[in-house]
Amino acid sequence: MTTIDVLCIGNAIVDIIARCEEEFLTDNGIIKGAMNLIDAERAELLYDRMGPALEASGGSAGNTAAGVASFGGAAAFFGKVAKDQLGDIYAHDIRAQGVRFATAPLAGPPPTARSMIFVTPDGERSMNTYLGACVELGPEDVEEAVVAASKVTYFEGYLWDPPRAKEAIRQCASIAHANGREMSMTLSDPFCVDRYREEFLDLMRSGTVDIVFANASEAKSLYQTDDLEEALARIAKDCRLAAVTRSELGSIVLRGDERVEIDAIEIRELVDTTGAGDLYAAGFLYGYTNGKTLDECGRLGSLAAGLVIQQVGPRPMQQLSKEAEKVGLA
Amino acid sequence: MTTIDVLCIGNAIVDIIARCEEEFLTDNGIIKGAMNLIDAERAELLYDRMGPALEASGGSAGNTAAGVASFGGAAAFFGKVAKDQLGDIYAHDIRAQGVRFATAPLAGPPPTARSMIFVTPDGERSMNTYLGACVELGPEDVEEAVVAASKVTYFEGYLWDPPRAKEAIRQCASIAHANGREMSMTLSDPFCVDRYREEFLDLMRSGTVDIVFANASEAKSLYQTDDLEEALARIAKDCRLAAVTRSELGSIVLRGDERVEIDAIEIRELVDTTGAGDLYAAGFLYGYTNGKTLDECGRLGSLAAGLVIQQVGPRPMQQLSKEAEKVGLA
Repeated sequence: MTTIDVLCIGNAIVDIIARCEEEFLTDNGIIKGAMNLIDAERAELLYDRMGPALEASGGSAGNTAAGVASFGGAAAFFGKVAKDQLGDIYAHDIRAQGVRFATAPLAGPPPTARSMIFVTPDGERSMNTYLGACVELGPEDVEEAVVAASKVTYFEGYLWDPPRAKEAIRQCASIAHANGREMSMTLSDPFCVDRYREEFLDLMRSGTVDIVFANASEAKSLYQTDDLEEALARIAKDCRLAAVTRSELGSIVLRGDERVEIDAIEIRELVDTTGAGDLYAAGFLYGYTNGKTLDECGRLGSLAAGLVIQQVGPRPMQQLSKEAEKVGLA
Repeated sequence: MTTIDVLCIGNAIVDIIARCEEEFLTDNGIIKGAMNLIDAERAELLYDRMGPALEASGGSAGNTAAGVASFGGAAAFFGKVAKDQLGDIYAHDIRAQGVRFATAPLAGPPPTARSMIFVTPDGERSMNTYLGACVELGPEDVEEAVVAASKVTYFEGYLWDPPRAKEAIRQCASIAHANGREMSMTLSDPFCVDRYREEFLDLMRSGTVDIVFANASEAKSLYQTDDLEEALARIAKDCRLAAVTRSELGSIVLRGDERVEIDAIEIRELVDTTGAGDLYAAGFLYGYTNGKTLDECGRLGSLAAGLVIQQVGPRPMQQLSKEAEKVGLA
């Protein structure tokens, strides 16, 4: 098998995106800016209350895979959809982006996962995710040859929510490390960190994960501190390489004693923050697996994240390889 | 039943929207700017070749109904979806916009209709429509009380493509006129006009249709002339009220000897022309059924059309009542 730059593993989710006012979130008990896990019944209730929407393939790691491919990197994805219309759309979109995707779809119920994303006037997104078919992702979905061929295997912390995906991840880590490859994860969401803090710390400290992505809230949640500098000092000790994003303040990359600060790009209008972290990871990992410096990796991340927040939907409509060329990062 | 401003009848279609280069259209035999009818097999082939896409509820008359409701008008819709995920999305979106929609969904195959819309860098859209469940719309779907309660019943010329929808339309015309209401249609597409020229002319000349919407190409196709002024003179004779749109040149409204010219609104960036004609009709008919002058009707049409072409997707994300207020047209 030819070498793959980045294999991404995550919940395969179709996003259902609508604008709403601030009060809608409070009236419906939705935690702003977070990923709220919901069951089938609440999914139906919220959809009844949701305004007219757009649908787009999403899922954190899926967005990252699409981003890597858009930069021109070789990307693969593991994730579970159902054999239904939304599953067909999901598979089409990720393959049409050039990502290798061959996870067997689930024949029976539950249906393909969907996340109702409410975008408030400030551009912030609040997600309400019904995991559907994602709960069935397990070790049987690990394609060993793909993991062995991937320079980096990247997964989302959200995978600790479905019951068996973590087994698949541990198996991937064994295969990856046996083949001299690296493992990477995103902490996903501060509430997700809160649910699985000890397990995430163990993944890092045991060397199961080499490269960690987090935003400032997630990093602070991981170490239960309000002091970002403290969190940065501790995360630099707990993993080999960490990239911590800070929205419009840019990002900080830490490797041992090395510390690189990267600016965010200037944006014209903040439309929808969905996919910002996912696309930062895409740019960073595309650069990382293609011999770029840490500074360049961070700037590729800033570029992709800055583009995706200026549109509706979690995957940039531009071809990222061309955008990188424009700013001399190709 | 309380009065409805506009009842819209059309093919209930989910749009699948992707960007493409000009060559993609020629390489795949897609007529640019047109609505290309395709069968299930070609739908599959084109989808395989299509890039990553967004999904949005569409359909010409459905877009018009959504627009009328967004302006604050009372709107209803007749159209046939299947009982499947795309059908659920379609029904949700139109109801969430405040449109009354109660057409029974089709239980069996074929599935809900979809149109693959390729948007070229110039913003022009080229549609490839698989009619799916729409072929089953027929007289049994006419809700007599709704027609009787609607000031205007508006339908798309595209309804002449499925086999039995035209019977439903003739039935609606009888009910509407028996109740002192008006019938309106859009000519939909120059190729559609070419397919049904004599029937469309007969609808107008027989008084089955009172108000006609057309763009310049459709009007010229109707009378097989290259001379727009000739087409305008003839359409003014053939129907009681006609509105002919001319993209960035604005529109011309004709009623007997009366002629009103309306400017297009200034736009910042042309993104995607999908829905332009549908939203012009929405603004016009909202104004028409709410006591506005022909000039105001046309300006409401220009406003809605101008907004929808500055975004991806066929239904404006703004609340049109607020936009009308901003420009003193509420």
